[in-house]
Amino acid sequence: MIDEKILKELRLILGDDGVSTGQSVRELHSHDESFHTPVLPDVVVFPNSKDDVSRIVRVANDNNIPITPWGVGTSLEGNPIPVDKGICIDFQKMNKVLAIRKEDFQVDVQVGVIYKDLNKILSRYGLFFPPDPGAAATIGGMIGNNASGIRTVKYGATKDCIMKIKVVLADGSVIDVGSRARKSSSGYNLCALFIGSEGTLGIVTEATLRLVGLPGGYTALRAVFPDVINATDTVFQVMSSGLMPAAMEFLDSDVMAVLNKDRGLKLHEMPTLLMEFHGYNEEGLKPELAFVEDICRENRCIFLDKGIGATERARLWEMRHLTFESIKRSHPGLLPLIMDVAVPLSRYSEMVGYIKKEINGLKAYVFGHAGDGNIHVIVMDNPEDRVRWNRVEEINERIVLKALSLEGTCTGEHGVGIGKRHFLKIEHGDSLEFMKRVKKMFDPKGILNPGKFFS
Amino acid sequence: MIDEKILKELRLILGDDGVSTGQSVRELHSHDESFHTPVLPDVVVFPNSKDDVSRIVRVANDNNIPITPWGVGTSLEGNPIPVDKGICIDFQKMNKVLAIRKEDFQVDVQVGVIYKDLNKILSRYGLFFPPDPGAAATIGGMIGNNASGIRTVKYGATKDCIMKIKVVLADGSVIDVGSRARKSSSGYNLCALFIGSEGTLGIVTEATLRLVGLPGGYTALRAVFPDVINATDTVFQVMSSGLMPAAMEFLDSDVMAVLNKDRGLKLHEMPTLLMEFHGYNEEGLKPELAFVEDICRENRCIFLDKGIGATERARLWEMRHLTFESIKRSHPGLLPLIMDVAVPLSRYSEMVGYIKKEINGLKAYVFGHAGDGNIHVIVMDNPEDRVRWNRVEEINERIVLKALSLEGTCTGEHGVGIGKRHFLKIEHGDSLEFMKRVKKMFDPKGILNPGKFFS
Repeated sequence: MIDEKILKELRLILGDDGVSTGQSVRELHSHDESFHTPVLPDVVVFPNSKDDVSRIVRVANDNNIPITPWGVGTSLEGNPIPVDKGICIDFQKMNKVLAIRKEDFQVDVQVGVIYKDLNKILSRYGLFFPPDPGAAATIGGMIGNNASGIRTVKYGATKDCIMKIKVVLADGSVIDVGSRARKSSSGYNLCALFIGSEGTLGIVTEATLRLVGLPGGYTALRAVFPDVINATDTVFQVMSSGLMPAAMEFLDSDVMAVLNKDRGLKLHEMPTLLMEFHGYNEEGLKPELAFVEDICRENRCIFLDKGIGATERARLWEMRHLTFESIKRSHPGLLPLIMDVAVPLSRYSEMVGYIKKEINGLKAYVFGHAGDGNIHVIVMDNPEDRVRWNRVEEINERIVLKALSLEGTCTGEHGVGIGKRHFLKIEHGDSLEFMKRVKKMFDPKGILNPGKFFS
Repeated sequence: MIDEKILKELRLILGDDGVSTGQSVRELHSHDESFHTPVLPDVVVFPNSKDDVSRIVRVANDNNIPITPWGVGTSLEGNPIPVDKGICIDFQKMNKVLAIRKEDFQVDVQVGVIYKDLNKILSRYGLFFPPDPGAAATIGGMIGNNASGIRTVKYGATKDCIMKIKVVLADGSVIDVGSRARKSSSGYNLCALFIGSEGTLGIVTEATLRLVGLPGGYTALRAVFPDVINATDTVFQVMSSGLMPAAMEFLDSDVMAVLNKDRGLKLHEMPTLLMEFHGYNEEGLKPELAFVEDICRENRCIFLDKGIGATERARLWEMRHLTFESIKRSHPGLLPLIMDVAVPLSRYSEMVGYIKKEINGLKAYVFGHAGDGNIHVIVMDNPEDRVRWNRVEEINERIVLKALSLEGTCTGEHGVGIGKRHFLKIEHGDSLEFMKRVKKMFDPKGILNPGKFFS
């Protein structure tokens, strides 16, 4: 329980304006973008530094108070909902870029920085941080969820782009894990353990990110296919040809229809692939583009729009941006349940086919990062209508189980949070026991983001 | 202690020819390719399957007998030397390719398979497993050491190319960790914990590897520079230009001299870069090659040999192969101490400069995977001559400490083994304590490859 004594301790650390018990602030930190039931934290704190975080955690540890780290609340599985109340740590003041190490392709940041803002700064140095979950997530949130996005097919997920992190442990002590060296075989890979752990093992406060040089040339391409299978066959062939797409997105016909309607477009309402390629200059991309075009044509592509250069790429991708917003806007009064599974590439067609049968009759939209075998389904419905919503949740359950039966995963990029907890046993079997032991080892009192990962 | 009763139990599991206590077999398994003192195991066993391994480990666990897994003994830090004797598990019979999943870019293998043999098989499917430590290592050894090699600069280290592993734990139970999905945010990343743990946490018996399509086109280039700094500047510029070299090797003038002498070549005895690029076809690589050439010329490159296509690439790389053998052959009667550090790219020149001063007067050769900031030094000397050898070991010590002071790592790719144990505290600080706890959690009795990682 948080009483006046504890609030006073927190105010001593952070000053009066670093501690808030106001209703509206607590409400803002009670939910993410999912449908999961909001829970208000007792208090929201705003640290300035890793030392502040360490002191906050010491107070929490001494008093057995739950702590939940908070980025900007764009997650989709209830990951930062403080289900046991307690202290919510909002990292918005810890948004500094600490050092840009251009020649090392590295940047040191506090984890409250939003990756889109960071990339604006980095572009001046010809660099970028590749993972792109879409929403305006913080680096801390991305590390917590091992976020990825459309460019992961080429550049990897967040786990592939973190070199070193500073972690405040459950007792308030601080450790560094990882290395600034691009490769290392030194010691156990604890860094990988913290990435994707959603703040349940420790609280990441600073990170050294691995960057990539901004490509000198871009090309993009939108290809329309008569059937899903033609699109997925194209995915296989492009991926196995030695080409390295920087994006390989699938959009089903319903998604194209909602985009047309919401945004006044006139695109084909058929299975569509959006691809992007990066190269050292535009000239060098031309033969590559011709090669991809051939693969599309061989797979019965009925329409193909393409372009070379940053402007053309922006034009072709414009319709993909804000897809989630277009879908939400088209169904006023309804809330989304967003599914997120990933399967081996060879199972992608089967998975999409299964999903399309399951969602028949619902307001549902299928799209995803096809190059990684990742599929999202957004179902718009009314959680208040228990009968209908239960059906949506049952469908989600069946779709996840199907993905697992195809040797896939219950979450490609949204994390476990609350929504995927009960699938972990099915996905991980006996190794789940060791995940619990790892949790116990780092957080013996269970104060770090409780109620997540494990039921 | 291994007595007749235990040998009988092992023979019951593996048959008579699966258990050897012969002197020559034990001697063969007493050392790797390093100078570290050999220790003979009490017995060497040859399992056929993960179930065999599980049964062996149960016997060892019941009787508190140390177990050391063994690939082919090509490691360089004493990683598989059975310092406490006991059972050595040789995986040579577990060399089967279990399933080739072409459309998923995956292959399932038993860990005794040698990666070069595997790549021969995979080439028929247009695929390959990218990490390439050079020596004829097994996949199990590569997983143990998180091996990498010349192509890591583009395709990552072993840790980046393992999707799923089957692990026999210290009590003989078997768990699966990882996923066949190309991306996942489900649960803690235990898979990453086992990779690079040198068999100290569990014994990996099977693995699903992530493969890459064989490129349709190759180009390679050898560039000679007047000074080390020109070569390292070229490395930075190529890496930051949006190009993605598939290899970026540095060879110092002494290495070039020994290659010339040993193999009758007439190459420039000056700092040299060897580069390779992969593309979807040869035509598409031509503008890329011209671009790299420009960068080299801007950095005072005084000679440049280049070629497009697999044959030209083979010609250009021929001299790089067997460098280690050429060096050894040039110093009969002497043994190598092989150093392996990695630093952030911006510190590469400083590190090479420091090394060259330190090794002055020794028979020493500097080369490395420059694109990853990885540097090797081979010093040829006589371990029997304690005065001289102590000096070599002291220089190794200073070079590692220098790398750590430059925010590098004590081992880029050879692992910790025996040789790098005492650097872990300096490199990892307080997080070493958590590595010890992880070890204790997975191996409470300390029977798994004892004497490695921790002193």
